[in-house]
Amino acid sequence: MKIIIDTDPGQDDALTILLALISPEIDLLGVTTVAGNVNVHQATINALKTMDLAGVTTVPVHTGADRPLLRAPIDATHVHGRTGFEGADLPDPTQKAAPGHAVDFIIRTVMENPPGSITLCAIGPMTNLALAISREPELRTRLGQIVTMSGAFSEVGNITPTAEFNIYADPHAAAIVLESGIRITMLPLDVTHTLHTSAARLARFEAIGNRVGKVVADWLRFEKTFEANKYGTDGGPLHDPNTVLWLLRPELYKGRQVNVRIETASELTMGMTVIDWWGITNLPKNTLFLRECNVEAAYDLITEVLSRF
Amino acid sequence: MKIIIDTDPGQDDALTILLALISPEIDLLGVTTVAGNVNVHQATINALKTMDLAGVTTVPVHTGADRPLLRAPIDATHVHGRTGFEGADLPDPTQKAAPGHAVDFIIRTVMENPPGSITLCAIGPMTNLALAISREPELRTRLGQIVTMSGAFSEVGNITPTAEFNIYADPHAAAIVLESGIRITMLPLDVTHTLHTSAARLARFEAIGNRVGKVVADWLRFEKTFEANKYGTDGGPLHDPNTVLWLLRPELYKGRQVNVRIETASELTMGMTVIDWWGITNLPKNTLFLRECNVEAAYDLITEVLSRF
Amino acid sequence: MKIIIDTDPGQDDALTILLALISPEIDLLGVTTVAGNVNVHQATINALKTMDLAGVTTVPVHTGADRPLLRAPIDATHVHGRTGFEGADLPDPTQKAAPGHAVDFIIRTVMENPPGSITLCAIGPMTNLALAISREPELRTRLGQIVTMSGAFSEVGNITPTAEFNIYADPHAAAIVLESGIRITMLPLDVTHTLHTSAARLARFEAIGNRVGKVVADWLRFEKTFEANKYGTDGGPLHDPNTVLWLLRPELYKGRQVNVRIETASELTMGMTVIDWWGITNLPKNTLFLRECNVEAAYDLITEVLSRF
Amino acid sequence: MKIIIDTDPGQDDALTILLALISPEIDLLGVTTVAGNVNVHQATINALKTMDLAGVTTVPVHTGADRPLLRAPIDATHVHGRTGFEGADLPDPTQKAAPGHAVDFIIRTVMENPPGSITLCAIGPMTNLALAISREPELRTRLGQIVTMSGAFSEVGNITPTAEFNIYADPHAAAIVLESGIRITMLPLDVTHTLHTSAARLARFEAIGNRVGKVVADWLRFEKTFEANKYGTDGGPLHDPNTVLWLLRPELYKGRQVNVRIETASELTMGMTVIDWWGITNLPKNTLFLRECNVEAAYDLITEVLSRF
Ligand SMILES: [Ca+2]
Ligand SMILES: [Ca+2]
Ligand SMILES: [Ca+2]
Ligand SMILES: [Ca+2]
Repeated sequence: MKIIIDTDPGQDDALTILLALISPEIDLLGVTTVAGNVNVHQATINALKTMDLAGVTTVPVHTGADRPLLRAPIDATHVHGRTGFEGADLPDPTQKAAPGHAVDFIIRTVMENPPGSITLCAIGPMTNLALAISREPELRTRLGQIVTMSGAFSEVGNITPTAEFNIYADPHAAAIVLESGIRITMLPLDVTHTLHTSAARLARFEAIGNRVGKVVADWLRFEKTFEANKYGTDGGPLHDPNTVLWLLRPELYKGRQVNVRIETASELTMGMTVIDWWGITNLPKNTLFLRECNVEAAYDLITEVLSRF
Repeated sequence: MKIIIDTDPGQDDALTILLALISPEIDLLGVTTVAGNVNVHQATINALKTMDLAGVTTVPVHTGADRPLLRAPIDATHVHGRTGFEGADLPDPTQKAAPGHAVDFIIRTVMENPPGSITLCAIGPMTNLALAISREPELRTRLGQIVTMSGAFSEVGNITPTAEFNIYADPHAAAIVLESGIRITMLPLDVTHTLHTSAARLARFEAIGNRVGKVVADWLRFEKTFEANKYGTDGGPLHDPNTVLWLLRPELYKGRQVNVRIETASELTMGMTVIDWWGITNLPKNTLFLRECNVEAAYDLITEVLSRF
Repeated sequence: MKIIIDTDPGQDDALTILLALISPEIDLLGVTTVAGNVNVHQATINALKTMDLAGVTTVPVHTGADRPLLRAPIDATHVHGRTGFEGADLPDPTQKAAPGHAVDFIIRTVMENPPGSITLCAIGPMTNLALAISREPELRTRLGQIVTMSGAFSEVGNITPTAEFNIYADPHAAAIVLESGIRITMLPLDVTHTLHTSAARLARFEAIGNRVGKVVADWLRFEKTFEANKYGTDGGPLHDPNTVLWLLRPELYKGRQVNVRIETASELTMGMTVIDWWGITNLPKNTLFLRECNVEAAYDLITEVLSRF
Repeated sequence: MKIIIDTDPGQDDALTILLALISPEIDLLGVTTVAGNVNVHQATINALKTMDLAGVTTVPVHTGADRPLLRAPIDATHVHGRTGFEGADLPDPTQKAAPGHAVDFIIRTVMENPPGSITLCAIGPMTNLALAISREPELRTRLGQIVTMSGAFSEVGNITPTAEFNIYADPHAAAIVLESGIRITMLPLDVTHTLHTSAARLARFEAIGNRVGKVVADWLRFEKTFEANKYGTDGGPLHDPNTVLWLLRPELYKGRQVNVRIETASELTMGMTVIDWWGITNLPKNTLFLRECNVEAAYDLITEVLSRF
């Protein structure tokens, strides 16, 4: 399975990249970065550091959009720390970003591969993806699928009472993507908030005994602080890696094919994913919206995959 | 406890009135009607028929607003049937509506009673209440409390993907009420959808052996059809009576004091109750928002109260 | 012609009242006040002071809404001064406000008079009028007409780039009124900005030689300062009196029957009067929208009327 | 002066291209097409036909965006006819579109030329331009200026009561461009509606005696029909050529440096250019907004330029 990861690392983004790099089922063609958790310059540095951590030199990292389409930029350094990698920062990258803009890389990769063969894994604001689809409308039929960590339903928002961060950061981009007609699988907060990064689970990563396991444990220990304080749980949620976990083992997740629209008109509900769970509109069911995860099996899978490093 | 019920009967509205009429803890000073489930003319007829069913001649019924403040009128005859009382329609009323508009009755009653002594039980669109508050700003400090069946949180909407019927029917009125500073308790779909009108529960009402029990069972049997089909449950939800049940036995419900705002700017999310459950804004906690109910105890209570007829 | 003036005085509101009081063609049944230029308490005081200035004791002043329906209150003390009467403040009123709310007075007066016989002259935010129409839907057919100073077209806004003050202060009320089906004549900024209160024109008022002429000249001299600075003209605009001038001499004005809608959804254009001047929608032509005035004749008329005091 | 014309021809777009091609002051580096008056495929054909009409084979035509960023596509075939060239259709083009997307051409051209040296003349919906700016943020400082026919102020809208066609067709793109910080000159309907394509003026084009003059006269004769019927004038407006006329002879136009924002939140006012003409906000004056034109001199200039063919 050939994939591109579009990302704003972020500790959980880095774990997503690591899982993809070491999984034989997945052929990671490239990583594209976008402003989100951190600015796009930092996002690229963090993606390159992640390559070094994995000992991989063959996967290009392309820098993408430095801001949302219309909205003023926001970031999530209140969650991820100033660098996005606090908890276990890594040495300066030994590699450089690949030449060429993220949007061009996405377009070229999709157009040069067989129709339907590429999966785009979107774990940051969807600015690059929206630009690629707008710039090359053939992506609407050529891109195989999008799997995204974003949105929220009954779990409601994390950046405002109604909106999840990745959508809120660029709601117009998300609206373009959701209306594109491309097959979409969404892993929302309803799923990610069930995967508590408990002390016991992080201890298992550490117990693997390799460097990657240690770094991931330290990252998630830092990241969870913010969320654990907010929700009063043992551990924070685990967000972005669910996309790759679903690609590897879709049977761990349950959901429903529904219509999802993005609020872009009102400040009060800006960036909300409006889910027609009960099918009371006649709008096209554009998204496989997942709501449940076999959490123990998911953590077993992460542990197993990280053990390969 | 002196209360006014503002209502658009509807079968479950009628049950709410019946519970209030027969409960010695409650002194029902009057019923005010509003366009909602049915038009306001039919709503008044239905309220008067309910008085006849209860054998009560001393509680005035005042007709109120015939349409929402700004939005085009909608109704819910797809749920409640054409008359609002399908399932067990009743003889033509023997009583007449009281003279004077619902809004004037609400204002006069609140102003003539001791400050804080009146509870307004709002189980239809909030048009009358918004007009009363706008017309007499002293209600902001004089009205004791509002208890309302309306809104939705993780249970999402029933008339659109995001909006509950009572709010959606007049979102501007709801916004006025929610911003009024008056103490508010909200019983949303999150609660009402847990009170399934199962066959067994309706059989218990019927087994009481009085006419009221039989009529209520027949009403809810009709009303549940629509919702049971939609959600695939044994029985539909039970909405409006939760307001009176909470007044009688607040310990049956659990919730949280939160900020609630009403979406009035966007068609996509129009009438949504935006709940800041996690306190991520600094806005005033204007509403006690209930999310759980001891369902068995609630049905025991209804059965016990209806037995008094 | 029987009229009610709904007003937030303001110097130009007071001139409007004075013109109505002294014109034999007009039977001013009452004045109702609303929060706008000043708070509603001050508005009532100013209306009463105006009665004293005119030596009239038979026209009731009823206090109305103390705030807009949904929006946070704004005022226009930057234009009218702190009291609304700066330039020539008047002695404390010798009369008291009449008992009964403005909304009730409007409803009662319209319902007790022959259908179509009452003109409502709306020269403040339309909160009272919207409440009256919502509370008594028969006003939709019983009220003869509304003549209002509000709105703007090619002259654009005065409180925001797109909105005129009276509409912006309560756009939801204006939307209710414009959608009511009642016959409406609108005197917008496009007209009022052509009636410059030039030094020569104010001198003519003063030259009348009576107290009212002097006070009016002093008022308008104060009021014009703000606007004259803004637009760089000799004198400010003359707003509210155009309503009564149009009632007295409609042939002084030219306009077109058009559809007018009020923006209530977007902050950027909130309170804008959206005018379909070219008839490119098929919406009902709900408003006679005036755009031109015979300015010299209008000032002649004011001078002539004020001479009667 | 090096320029790129981004366009959706359209008869008046073609005249704009012709004026640029034959003016020695202007070096037309390329034409980029966008969906607007006609679909983007037709727009490219029309641009190529225009090159043939001018006898030019050295200016590349690049096809761009086939739809707006977020809105459903609209067109203006009710004004321009089905082909966009009705009135005087031309032979099938002998040239082909240049390889490479319009957005890439814009980015490459701006980045390869000295900073500030390129003028972008935007006479269709701004989709390409918004994509270019989003994809290459350096355009914000590298692009010399944008001159655009779009927007409206006191002349109000032509596609809705408040919106001009080019902005309405892609308001989100326009918002991106207006917020970009790039120097912008806007030629709105306020100007273009003053340049009536009267019979006498079109006769002068025809009297030039060359083929181009004849075709342009026939085009504008067709195009004016729609607008002349609507406004009851002798001749329709002349829109897009004002951009090139302003580049050639800016002294023919008068305007003011103001803040312009684009409405994207409300359907009622969607795509409106909100002009702060009186400077009542403190927002940056991002646009030179022109409101007046020396019309006779403008037609003299067109006639003179067309005579060179
Ligand atoms: Ca991320
Ligand atoms: Ca109800
Ligand atoms: Ca006024
Ligand atoms: Ca064009």
